[in-house]
Parts: sequence; structure tokens; C-alpha cells
Amino acid sequence: MKKTIEEIEKDFLRYVNKISHYEEAINLMYWDLRTKAPAKSVEQRANSIATLSTELHKMCTSEVFEEMFTTLLSEEASGQISEITKKAALECRKDYDHFKKIPLDEYEEFVKLQSKAESVWEEAKEKGDFSLFQPYLEQLVEKTKIFIGYWGYEGNPYNTLLDLYEPGVTVDILDQVFAELRDGIIDLLKDIQHSSKKPDTSFLYHPFPKEKQEAFSLDILKQFGYDFRSGRLDETVHPFEITINPYDVRITTKYDEKDFRVAVFGTIHEGGHALYEQHISKDLMGTPLATGTSMGIHESQSLFHEIFIGRNRSFWEYHYDRFKKYSEGQFDHVSLDDFYRAINEVKPTLIRIEADEVTYPLHIIIRYEIEKGLFNDEIEVKDLPKIWNEKYKHYLGIEPDNDGVGVLQDVHWAGADFGYFPSYALGYMYAAQLKHAMLKEIPDFDKRLAKGDLKPIEDWLSENVHRFGKMKKPLEILQEATGEPLKAKYLINYLRDKYKEIYDLS
Amino acid sequence: MKKTIEEIEKDFLRYVNKISHYEEAINLMYWDLRTKAPAKSVEQRANSIATLSTELHKMCTSEVFEEMFTTLLSEEASGQISEITKKAALECRKDYDHFKKIPLDEYEEFVKLQSKAESVWEEAKEKGDFSLFQPYLEQLVEKTKIFIGYWGYEGNPYNTLLDLYEPGVTVDILDQVFAELRDGIIDLLKDIQHSSKKPDTSFLYHPFPKEKQEAFSLDILKQFGYDFRSGRLDETVHPFEITINPYDVRITTKYDEKDFRVAVFGTIHEGGHALYEQHISKDLMGTPLATGTSMGIHESQSLFHEIFIGRNRSFWEYHYDRFKKYSEGQFDHVSLDDFYRAINEVKPTLIRIEADEVTYPLHIIIRYEIEKGLFNDEIEVKDLPKIWNEKYKHYLGIEPDNDGVGVLQDVHWAGADFGYFPSYALGYMYAAQLKHAMLKEIPDFDKRLAKGDLKPIEDWLSENVHRFGKMKKPLEILQEATGEPLKAKYLINYLRDKYKEIYDLS
Repeated sequence: MKKTIEEIEKDFLRYVNKISHYEEAINLMYWDLRTKAPAKSVEQRANSIATLSTELHKMCTSEVFEEMFTTLLSEEASGQISEITKKAALECRKDYDHFKKIPLDEYEEFVKLQSKAESVWEEAKEKGDFSLFQPYLEQLVEKTKIFIGYWGYEGNPYNTLLDLYEPGVTVDILDQVFAELRDGIIDLLKDIQHSSKKPDTSFLYHPFPKEKQEAFSLDILKQFGYDFRSGRLDETVHPFEITINPYDVRITTKYDEKDFRVAVFGTIHEGGHALYEQHISKDLMGTPLATGTSMGIHESQSLFHEIFIGRNRSFWEYHYDRFKKYSEGQFDHVSLDDFYRAINEVKPTLIRIEADEVTYPLHIIIRYEIEKGLFNDEIEVKDLPKIWNEKYKHYLGIEPDNDGVGVLQDVHWAGADFGYFPSYALGYMYAAQLKHAMLKEIPDFDKRLAKGDLKPIEDWLSENVHRFGKMKKPLEILQEATGEPLKAKYLINYLRDKYKEIYDLS
Repeated sequence: MKKTIEEIEKDFLRYVNKISHYEEAINLMYWDLRTKAPAKSVEQRANSIATLSTELHKMCTSEVFEEMFTTLLSEEASGQISEITKKAALECRKDYDHFKKIPLDEYEEFVKLQSKAESVWEEAKEKGDFSLFQPYLEQLVEKTKIFIGYWGYEGNPYNTLLDLYEPGVTVDILDQVFAELRDGIIDLLKDIQHSSKKPDTSFLYHPFPKEKQEAFSLDILKQFGYDFRSGRLDETVHPFEITINPYDVRITTKYDEKDFRVAVFGTIHEGGHALYEQHISKDLMGTPLATGTSMGIHESQSLFHEIFIGRNRSFWEYHYDRFKKYSEGQFDHVSLDDFYRAINEVKPTLIRIEADEVTYPLHIIIRYEIEKGLFNDEIEVKDLPKIWNEKYKHYLGIEPDNDGVGVLQDVHWAGADFGYFPSYALGYMYAAQLKHAMLKEIPDFDKRLAKGDLKPIEDWLSENVHRFGKMKKPLEILQEATGEPLKAKYLINYLRDKYKEIYDLS
């Protein structure tokens, strides 16, 4: 007997719920591997993760599953299923197509290539020698181009890669906003570099006990409203946020006793990701919609907290006295103004992850321009070191003396994660635009920070961004929350206003 | 084309390896639930565990799996497969039969009954009212009797239940050793109670900071040779040991700042379990043989460490000075002798898990006698409180004033874990017999403890017990390690010798 649409909807929801249980197990195994797992257990753990991931993959690409979501997305089902089911089915179809359009043998070969490329990349980075990595990167780019052929594209082949991380964002959009952002920042950077008012940062590097850093980080997370009954903070080497289940959103941080900023700003950053996940509507639980809608929107939430709150003068007005008490006296003779200027020092660096908030987007734009060139056959892999170094010289005024601190610094390309980098700068622009919109409803934003009252800010983000999960696409969220499409000017204006004061610009 | 035995053996080993990966995920989820999981995540976590457990159950009871191990255990395969494969196949068949002999609907009904019974038991225990729990226990016993009918039995129906936890141990064996042990202990207890030399224990209950208890516990685990690169120690409410994978054997402990014994002896106990698991031959990895062979042998290893090492005078000769330094001065004026006598105080208690090492077996024997009676239709559930109280009066000289501290104190019966209790006392007797045998090869056992040199002791246990995993049955291990079948006298002699000195008995 043929099943009714109602029955198929139930089957489908049960099926995706089961998928979410496998994801929970796998995510917990990852979390454990990166925080608590004993050294010798790693290899065996990796095998177990591989087994469960393979099962998960089978579930997501099974014929029985395909039949369910295809029926639910057909004319026949239209109007009979819930909006959540419909969007969930669309997500499942997208994932399904992503895998199924690639012949299995080519996919498996690609996974092996990625894994090999990552280990070669590590060695090449260590030795600062791009030529070792070049043949692997060439193959990864070639294969990815072939995959784009399978997947298809609209307008520009690189759009298909962007769509993996930031659905709806295209080369046309990025070309425009990134050009404006790049020029705006380069102008500002020149002004800053001409300023004679340089912050003193020497006092930042004194010993600050780990337990005290942790206590302060916990205070801030509590102030943000991070729910410790639905999450926890642990230590790790490379900090991350991970959602084990919607009531278990964990963050990790790293402590450097000679530089408190690593833990404090790192925790705030990951905390921003976690608040997003914690505030997603529980109606979406057990579906693929119960997570952040894109890498860029996710990054907008971590950067909103790290930069627009954490590096704001008013935020420190509220916290500075307590913060001083946690330290071993290193700030006793440092005024709030000097402290604020020190944590906002602008200084071009070769390394993306060490960049300040002014120059950071330039690192991303360089990577975007290169990726776009590669996938439009305008740049060849063999020329990357040269092009990389020229762009750094041109945009940032500095040049790497070896590829290890240049073109080889990030792992992304070794993992074939082309299309990912733009999310970082998109997230930053989203955050600035959201802040601008928020100010209309919370004009006393700074005053509230100075009073330690973050509730209306978190409520605004929750209401306008967080709760939707994947029910809305990134640009839909931005448009509805701010009333405008993406614009670079809000970030440029923010940076100019802020650094005008810090560097006494005209 | 028909597969060769060699091919089937490979398929089988791949299959059980996959099973071990599911077990790894499930065990990690349990560990996390009991140590780190945030409060609100529990319900969703339980759902994920249920999903994976159901999949695991399907794998263990699938027809394709049954075909594999049946072929491997057939005449045809005889001599062609490895000994490990053969024993693994036997284990799989045993589990398979255990589930398959019970009709699925009866099994599902039973699981529901268990779950209901556990929540009713909690309430009944809280209220000290057996009558609430009685109808559920009656059903659990009735159903279990029906299951014994399905499973079959030899000699005595209760043997089938014993076999679930301690394969090879029967009512005939237990009747004999438990009677001897019971009488020996009751005699000793009377002598102790008549002694005028009572230890002073008042100094045990001073505040001892948690971090210091932890540091001392870690010292001891290191001394035992517990490998922290294959394990870790965490805090929990009800301490346990859990094997996530053979290179990841974790222990947990509980800290009571008013009684250091909870953490110190608890850690030693769980550490004993963990050493067993860490020393199992890695040749068995990925098969169902890579774990302890039975509950009793497992308990023998925890009790060997807790009692025969941890409560030994020589052990404290080595540790007492350092231990004093960790404390806040509470033992500054306590001699080693007084300390040793205090931690070995004998005092009958109503509660099994609070019992001293002399009276502990009596708690177990009471439970054994009752279970045996129930499954031989000699005792009815409704009479349990009366029988329980009489036995406590008779064996221990004390009587509960309500069922909460009497017949309702343990969770085991609510979970229908009939046949489990004897393992505790068996483990204790195994440990005493192993110690006796070990003394022939390590006659200076006490001197080595006094010097802090545990290596030969751990090596002996590893060589004679640990490494075999499930390759040998419990009584096989005991026989081969000690050259004798199970005897009660070694435990009785140990207790008499030890307490003669402590209580100055004639």
C-alpha cells in the first residue's frame, strides 16, 4: 500500500533525527580527540570515527532517503508538509546531489589525494618550500575543476565553490564589496602608518596565570549569557566551538601565560559561535536545520563578540578593574586608555591568524583574488608564490622571506577547501552591518557595554540572526535584519571612526 | 561463488571490528554523560545512545553475522581458523543465542518493565517502603524464570543466571565456598567484637583538600604503572572504570573533603580494574575478547589493589610520610600503626557499599542465598523484607529499621541483574587465592610494598591474569595461575591473620 505524504513526512523526520544521533556521536569523538583523549588512543579513535562517518555518509546518500525527500519536494506534497520539513528536505537534497554527482571512484581517489596533500603540505610548510606541495595543489585544483563540471555553475565556475560555504554569495557580489573594502582599508592603513601616535604594547606580555585567565574568561562568557548548563569550556591546542547536540554547545580555548589576549579574545570569539548555536530554535532539533546557516554568518557572530564588543572601549570600562585584579599587577600603572590602545594596535603581519582587525580583511582578499584566478584559468598554481608575495607587498607593504610564512601558511588549500576563505571577511562585513542596524534600536550600545548590560544586544542577535538556524539563507538574514543588501561601507566606516581616535588621524 | 573459510574469517574479523567501533562511540558517550556532559544535554544524549545501541544490537543479531560465526564454528572450518577467531566466534554465538532465544516482543516488554521498575525502586527506596516495589520485582522474577526456560539450564535454574556474569561458576560451587566463607567470617567477627582493642578513627574525618587528594591518588596510579598515555582520571558521582578503546582506559573517582578514603581507596579500586584492561594483549584488539573475562575476575583485580595492596601496612610504610604532607596536618600526631588500624576498622553496617573488608562478603552471601531461593521457588518476593532482616540479624548482628537501608538498598534487582552479586565475593576470594599463589614467586611481597617496588607484582598479575582477556574462562585462569580450584580458605586465612594483629586476637 502506498504511503501517505503524512507518513512519508514522519519517516523522513525519523530518518534525519537518526542522522543527527550519528552526528552527535561523531562530534563528541572529535571533541574528545581534541581535548581529553589520551595520546595513544588517537589512531584507534580515528578508525572508529571513520566507521561511523562512513555509515553516516551511506545514510545521507541512500536511495530510500532520496525517495523520501524527492516525494516531499514534489508537486504532490506541496502544501501538505511543514515549512521545517520542506527546508530540511531541500538541505538533504543539496547534500545528496553534492555527493551523488561525483562518480564514487573519483570521489574516493580525491579523498586519498586530500589526505596525502595535507601531509605533504605540512612538510612543505616546515621547509618553506612550495615546490614540494605544488604538484599536489595542481591536482587538487584540477580535480576540483572537474567536480565543478559535474556540479554545474551559474555565471562563474568559482560561484559553485562559494555556494558550498556561503549560499547565495557570488563573484559579482564579492568583486564589488571586496574591491571597496580593500581600497578603504589600504587608505586607512597608510594614514595609521603615518601617524606618530604609536601605542605602547610592552606591558601586554607579562606573565598572567592560566587559572586567572580562565576565571576572567568564564566571567565574560557568563556576562554574554552563554549557558553553562548547555555547554562547557575546555582547553585545547587549536581552539574551536563544537555542537554535540543543541543542548551541548562546547567551546575550547588556549592559554598563553605570556599573552592573555590569546585566551581572552579567543574565548570571546568561540563564545560568539556558541551563543549562535545555543540560541537556535529548538523546533529545529533533530533536523539538518539546527545549526548556523553559513560559515560567514557564523563568523559574523564570533567577530561581533570579539571585535565589536570585546575590543570596544566601553566593554573594558566595565571590566578593566576586575581584569586588573585577576592579573599579577601588570596593569597597575596602565591607564584604561593606554590599555585600550594597546589591544587595538595596528601592525601588518605576514600571518593571517595573527593579524589585527584593520589588516585582517586584506589577508582574505588576497586569497580570494588568487582562488578566483585559479578557477577562472587566469592564474597557474606554479606562479602562486610570486603572486602571493607581490600582493602582500602591494596591499600590506611586507613580503615573506619564505613560503612557510607566505603561500603555505594555511591548511585550507591542502584540504581543497577552495571557496572557504571569503567567509571570514564576509562575516566581518556582516557583523559591521548588523551593528549599524542594531544601533537604530539600541542607540545607547556603548553605554550599555559600559554598564555591563549586554542583554538587549544578545536578544537582538538572537531575534534577528540566531534563532533561524538554517531556515534562512545568509543574505536573507542580512537583508531582513538590516533592511539592506551587503555593503562594505559599514565596516570601513567603523574602522575609520575607531582608528581615527586611537591613532589621532585627521 | 562460495566464499572460502579464509575469506569468511576476514569478513568476520572486519564485522567484529566494526562492532568495536560502535562500542567505542557508545562508551565515550556514557563516559561523557557521567563526567563532563552539561546538565541540559542529558535527554538528547540518551536518545543518541539508544539509536547507536539499537544499531549495535541489530549487528550482533543479524542473520549475515550468524551465518559467519556458525560457518567458522563448523566442522568444515576446524583447524583452518586462528584460536582468536574461534574464541571470538564462540563469544558472538553466546550473545546471539542469549538474545535470539527470547521472542522479540517479550524482550521489548521486559526492557520496558525494567525501566519502570527502576523508577519505582527509586521512590520505594526513598520512602523505605518495599510494598511499592514488590509487584515489579515479582514480575521481573517471573519473567526471568520464563527466560531461563527459553535459555535452558543445567543442574539448577540459577546456574543460567550465574553464567551471565561468571561463566563456569555454579550453585554447587558457591554453596560450598560461600558456606565456608560465611562461617569463617562470622567466627572472626565475633572474636573482633569481643576484642577490647578498638581502633581510634576520629582523626580520619578532618578536612583534606580535594586537589591534594587528587595529587596523592595520581601518585599511586603512577606507582601502579597505570599508563596515563592510555587513560585518564576524572571526577564523577558514582566512580567507575570504562574502556573506550584498548588504548583509552579511563577511571573516575569521587572526592569527599571530610573523608579522604572515598577518593584514595576508590581510585585504587578503579585503578585495579583499569590495569587489567590496559594489560590485555593487543592481539585481541577489535574482537569481543579484548576485555576482562568476567565480573568476578575483574573484581579480583580491583580488590587485589584496594585491599591486598592499598590496605596493607607495608604499602603505607612507603607512602605515609608523603601522604601526611599532602594533608593539612591532620595526621601529624598519628603514628603509622594507629593510622593503619583506623583504615582497617571492622564495624558491621547495614549498607553493603559502606562495609569493611571483613563483613563485606556477608552482605553478598545474604543476597546470594535470597536469589538462589527465589529462582528455586523456595522464597517468595513478598517475604523478602522479613528474610533480609533476619539474615542481617543472624550474620551481622544488626537489623535495618526500614527497607530503604535494607532490602531496597541496591539497584541490581530493579535492573533484573540477578546472578550478578556473587561476582563481588568471588572476586574477593579469587584475589586472596591469587595473592597466596603469588607469594610463592614473590615471597618478599610486603618488603617490596615497603620499598615502593610494585613492578614484579604487576608483572605477575599481567602475566597470569590480565593479558588473556576473554581467551580464558574465569575458573581456567584461577586454576592455571594458582594450581588449584577455587577455595575459600585463602580469604579466611588472610582475614584471620591480618585482624589477629589489628585486634590483638588470641
